[in-house]
Amino acid sequence: MRYRNFPMVPRVVFGNGSFLQLGEILMPKRKNSEAPFIFFIDDVFDGQPLITEVPLLFNDQIIFISSEEEPKTEQVDALVAKIKESFPVLPSGIIGIGGGTLLDLAKAVALMLTNDGSAAAYQGWDLVKKPAIYHVGIPTISGTGAEVSRTTVLMGPEKKLGINSDHTPFDQVLLDPKLTQGVPKEQWFFTGMDCYIHCIESLNGTYLNAFSQSYGEKALELCHEVYLKDISKEDSRDKLMMASWHGGMSIAYSQVGIAHAMSYGLSYLLGVKHGIGNCLVFQYLEEFYPEGVKVFKQMQEKHQIKLPTGICAHLSEEQFDIMINVSFGLVPLWENALGDNWKEIMTYDRLLQLFKKI
Amino acid sequence: MRYRNFPMVPRVVFGNGSFLQLGEILMPKRKNSEAPFIFFIDDVFDGQPLITEVPLLFNDQIIFISSEEEPKTEQVDALVAKIKESFPVLPSGIIGIGGGTLLDLAKAVALMLTNDGSAAAYQGWDLVKKPAIYHVGIPTISGTGAEVSRTTVLMGPEKKLGINSDHTPFDQVLLDPKLTQGVPKEQWFFTGMDCYIHCIESLNGTYLNAFSQSYGEKALELCHEVYLKDISKEDSRDKLMMASWHGGMSIAYSQVGIAHAMSYGLSYLLGVKHGIGNCLVFQYLEEFYPEGVKVFKQMQEKHQIKLPTGICAHLSEEQFDIMINVSFGLVPLWENALGDNWKEIMTYDRLLQLFKKI
Repeated sequence: MRYRNFPMVPRVVFGNGSFLQLGEILMPKRKNSEAPFIFFIDDVFDGQPLITEVPLLFNDQIIFISSEEEPKTEQVDALVAKIKESFPVLPSGIIGIGGGTLLDLAKAVALMLTNDGSAAAYQGWDLVKKPAIYHVGIPTISGTGAEVSRTTVLMGPEKKLGINSDHTPFDQVLLDPKLTQGVPKEQWFFTGMDCYIHCIESLNGTYLNAFSQSYGEKALELCHEVYLKDISKEDSRDKLMMASWHGGMSIAYSQVGIAHAMSYGLSYLLGVKHGIGNCLVFQYLEEFYPEGVKVFKQMQEKHQIKLPTGICAHLSEEQFDIMINVSFGLVPLWENALGDNWKEIMTYDRLLQLFKKI
Repeated sequence: MRYRNFPMVPRVVFGNGSFLQLGEILMPKRKNSEAPFIFFIDDVFDGQPLITEVPLLFNDQIIFISSEEEPKTEQVDALVAKIKESFPVLPSGIIGIGGGTLLDLAKAVALMLTNDGSAAAYQGWDLVKKPAIYHVGIPTISGTGAEVSRTTVLMGPEKKLGINSDHTPFDQVLLDPKLTQGVPKEQWFFTGMDCYIHCIESLNGTYLNAFSQSYGEKALELCHEVYLKDISKEDSRDKLMMASWHGGMSIAYSQVGIAHAMSYGLSYLLGVKHGIGNCLVFQYLEEFYPEGVKVFKQMQEKHQIKLPTGICAHLSEEQFDIMINVSFGLVPLWENALGDNWKEIMTYDRLLQLFKKI
């Protein structure tokens, strides 16, 4: 048995209002006045007070990016080209401020500024050879675990798949729960459920060991506190941010499962966003995760979250076929969920019936 | 409010038998065939099968070190001098294999190989200016949290105090629960209680925030599983190793409290080892930590651990005075435990009475 030598984020700040320390954190990482810091910021913050607190110096630049769509390899390539055109030297660093989309774009662009070719060529496991430039992750919504993971999940021309590598994790993460104050309720729910579902899948998987179990259990407990107990808003923000962090760490020696495999299919074909995609699938997985689905429905009920229906109602056979193939392509997820003989358990037809419910 | 930018161990392997991967992990860190890896190994392993698995190459060296006594600044200085005399170049790295004493010595020597003067000059907070040489921590007993902390606690000529700095943490940690198989029962108990007591103190302290709380709660839960539930030996080793890890992480934004402050006094005057020192003190702290002490006594009962008595029976007034002064010197610990007006709560006489019980 070989165990992964897991890369952890080497620096983390946690605290309400810690965003104000960003300038001081970046200062020693500034290579020179020519080499800017580039801030990728979710465009919902355009014109918001947060922007006045971004510690811009010299030719630093803010690039606002929409998180309406899942991040794409071609979007990464375009950002890299734009940065290379705009500046004669490599930037001092990339700072991603936003949800999973913004964090994943920051990680991917930091990698692709030092590695040649298209981001699509690096989708997979350990294909990245050169270290990224310095990159910082600052989540403004909690649940994806992107702030701590060794992947950046991208929609490519052929597949939705992460760039998984030891060079992917952020060099620095800043966790300021105050930044998550303005998140709309539905998004708060769907993104938090990304963490919840991820934990249910990894804790029930065959890949788990004690390291990942301890992180996953803590993340799950925190999700229960946030979504089932009546705690203060401030506590809730703090705890969900830590749930996301521990949930992301738990992936070190575990894997996600059926909901993620199917949700990738939905995203690929229909562009359904990851958080809501997981929920759409997970509600129908009680035969695989009975307790997890029961509690999920309690949370949904408590917060009166309605999920859209009929998403797959009018799909053609060909379209179902695409989704099923994308899903089945994620072999480690199925192995983790159902064991080595997963193909006997999850037949094409059984998966088709599951997709048809959505 | 300013928040610490906490340095995390950037690489970690967890797994039974992962010690066999050490050679492969060290290989890319070898500077050249002249620059050895120096292995500090607890001398209980001298002649044991583990030694045959140490991946020695070229002029790599094993130095066996006793953990009978707490690590000392003069011991660090002597080890540094010895290494500098023995080799014309700085080593490729220092690997500590053992309990808290060995891990702390490895961290301190790695720091002092690049920083001038005596280790005693760096006892305190953020006095270290230059990065350490590459250093790896491999615990063979669980509970101290030394594998993940940003301190190395040393007995100096004037005080028992840590070298707390961002350069202190290991560059790599290898967590192989199998290595803890041979730990004698009493040591297993006392060292595990270091983690347990540490969690009780930090979770009940005033310094706590949600980051540290989540780690501390998980560590405490794992301690309960290990010391109160009937789980398999393998599970127990896995879980205690993770308890120690999370317990160490929880210190990021928290502090220990009364038991540690008093235990430092005991260590300083009488050379009482840290783990047992904590237990000797903690049993008498029910007025401060009622639930924690109650559960501690259940654990002690379940594992039939007898604590020595009369440790302070024959001390002179002067000796008590020394212990009390060392304890009171640890201001952040008292503030964390009792708040800003701690001096009104914990008077000289009250502390004296507590020491006299031990």
